Amino acid sequence: MSAFDLKSLDECLEKHLPAAELKEVKRILYGVEEDLTLELPAAATATAEQHGFEIKGYRFKAQKEQLRKSRLVRVGAIQNSIALPTDAPIEQQREGIWQKVKAMIKAAAEAGCNIVCTQEAWTMPFAFCTREKFPWCEFAEEAETGATTKMLSELAQAYNMVIIHSILERDAAHGDTIWNTAVVISNNGRFMGKHRKNHIPRVGDFNESTYYLEGNTGHPVFETEFGKLAINICYGRHHPQNWMMFGVNGAEIVFNPSATIGRLSEPLWSIEARNAAIANSYFTVPINRVGTEQFPNEYTSGDGRPAHKDFGPFYGSTYVAAPDGSRTPSLSRCNDGLLVTELDLNLCRQVKDFWGFRQTQRLPLYAESLQKATQPDFKPQVIREQ
Amino acid sequence: MSAFDLKSLDECLEKHLPAAELKEVKRILYGVEEDLTLELPAAATATAEQHGFEIKGYRFKAQKEQLRKSRLVRVGAIQNSIALPTDAPIEQQREGIWQKVKAMIKAAAEAGCNIVCTQEAWTMPFAFCTREKFPWCEFAEEAETGATTKMLSELAQAYNMVIIHSILERDAAHGDTIWNTAVVISNNGRFMGKHRKNHIPRVGDFNESTYYLEGNTGHPVFETEFGKLAINICYGRHHPQNWMMFGVNGAEIVFNPSATIGRLSEPLWSIEARNAAIANSYFTVPINRVGTEQFPNEYTSGDGRPAHKDFGPFYGSTYVAAPDGSRTPSLSRCNDGLLVTELDLNLCRQVKDFWGFRQTQRLPLYAESLQKATQPDFKPQVIREQ
Repeated sequence: MSAFDLKSLDECLEKHLPAAELKEVKRILYGVEEDLTLELPAAATATAEQHGFEIKGYRFKAQKEQLRKSRLVRVGAIQNSIALPTDAPIEQQREGIWQKVKAMIKAAAEAGCNIVCTQEAWTMPFAFCTREKFPWCEFAEEAETGATTKMLSELAQAYNMVIIHSILERDAAHGDTIWNTAVVISNNGRFMGKHRKNHIPRVGDFNESTYYLEGNTGHPVFETEFGKLAINICYGRHHPQNWMMFGVNGAEIVFNPSATIGRLSEPLWSIEARNAAIANSYFTVPINRVGTEQFPNEYTSGDGRPAHKDFGPFYGSTYVAAPDGSRTPSLSRCNDGLLVTELDLNLCRQVKDFWGFRQTQRLPLYAESLQKATQPDFKPQVIREQ
Repeated sequence: MSAFDLKSLDECLEKHLPAAELKEVKRILYGVEEDLTLELPAAATATAEQHGFEIKGYRFKAQKEQLRKSRLVRVGAIQNSIALPTDAPIEQQREGIWQKVKAMIKAAAEAGCNIVCTQEAWTMPFAFCTREKFPWCEFAEEAETGATTKMLSELAQAYNMVIIHSILERDAAHGDTIWNTAVVISNNGRFMGKHRKNHIPRVGDFNESTYYLEGNTGHPVFETEFGKLAINICYGRHHPQNWMMFGVNGAEIVFNPSATIGRLSEPLWSIEARNAAIANSYFTVPINRVGTEQFPNEYTSGDGRPAHKDFGPFYGSTYVAAPDGSRTPSLSRCNDGLLVTELDLNLCRQVKDFWGFRQTQRLPLYAESLQKATQPDFKPQVIREQ
């Protein structure tokens, strides 16, 4: 069995485990004690069928409170492959992906989504493996005024939906610099702001550090009509302190648009965003692309293998984790898909009251410890035998 | 099926999944591509059989380097139930647990372990649910000179083994205060130092905050003959920043002696210590007790249920996670057990070089962010629609 014969971990467990064991396994693995399935409107499933992408719906409930109403929001997470070969003209490549994803945003609207988020660098192949600046930097757009932000602003307004999209950014006003950036568009179709990827990988084929630097936008939380949102872009999910600062700034949902491949990171995928949801009492939405991308010129991977032209497969497996440690099943490992999840944002504060992780965080201790740890003459706290 | 019919998640998967699927599921769930089984000496398995506890062995390998020799160490992790009813005389209760655990330490020595760690508050029932100070505070001992430290010091010297044990501490020199403390004894049988639990729960039956306060010992790393060790006690595993500081101080193995129960934390158990291993490029060893403990007087759980006398079941499931994100299977959810794991400590730096998480950590950013976040006039970084 090759890695991609297994289309879905969840379907494999459901197929083989007897019902009673499956229930226990799901409780232990996923923190799920009841069926999370959310029935989706026929229009949404019809759109998914027509365009050939997977659609799944789940819901997380919270307790009823006396003084606060339920704050139900529906979140759409989109994973997809690119549309055209990577040597097609840039505009056609982008247009091909736009068409794919527009259908998925339409289905999200039909499914009642209030917020949608794309995968990382969604308008382009993840070409940073090549270290070629041309033509890939041509995919970069102004976050505020670029063609993709404009196109999505219309959809956001039409569908009354917050849209978060993750692109390669060109900042003309600051020396034509390139950034890895997420843009937040309000449900009125207005540009709300942007966040730049805080942690940049230097691993495997992720040669991103040769294209852009560490983000300079801090840890912004976007207060939208549908909750307080933040974006932790891709490799930033490996850094608990990055997740923590979005929590400190009040996030209720943190999206993690990503592009990551099999053996490199798949065993980490189900751990990190879920740990962040637990540690920070918020929802997390890790999103990964699918498919294998072929590039015009061969490149090497720094792992002893011969030069090659393919990058991937990206293993998809988009899911949502809740602050109580439970999580949805994943989208497939290989197909385009839309994950629709209904959240009651009240769960965040309820879990804070229950577990008390924020209350017991001792931030002053860590502010002081990190302050010391970053001094040039820092001496680690090491105890040796006397 | 009740929660405890499923004795082991791993055995359940192994029983029901076809071989090819099982291999893929283990790769995705556990990051394991080859069999980790470590063959154990007959003497160790005989001792385990004689005393009726589970024993399992696993190994994590690292790449061979040219300039550093492999640094193989064997770690023993002990999970156990108490030995006598909780209304037996204190000394007999303690002696009963000592006898149990001494046999397990003997088996650890026979299995070639260099380091052994107990579960949290190992000499006593986890009686803090009751909020009764008497007689439970009588279990507290001086970390440096208490009877249990003395007893273990002899074993440490006899077996040439570092022993870490987690106890209720009585600090007579500082006002007879009570702490939740881990003690490190060198393989020469000498007291090396202690660490006090940094984060204290206020959740469910974990009424520990009525017994002791947040630890005042920082994040010490113990430089032993068998590697740099640290201890993150129980509830501290929910706090990524706690794990991080042990990493900043250079830990290669961080033990997590715990006492935690089913529905409360089991879905978090497999996530948090493993996430810490990944984020900090070190090994983690989460250890949990087993069994249900009955107390003389009834108490309430703050969850609407009637008063009762039982606490638990503690679900065991002790495991080891490696810096590359892989992990061992768990010990059982209900039996006493010794988990023997051979580690090559060289893997820590190899993973740092590969993934670069430490390199890309941006600690100065977080030192500054936390400094600001802990000021009384802190304003979170929130962006609203203009």
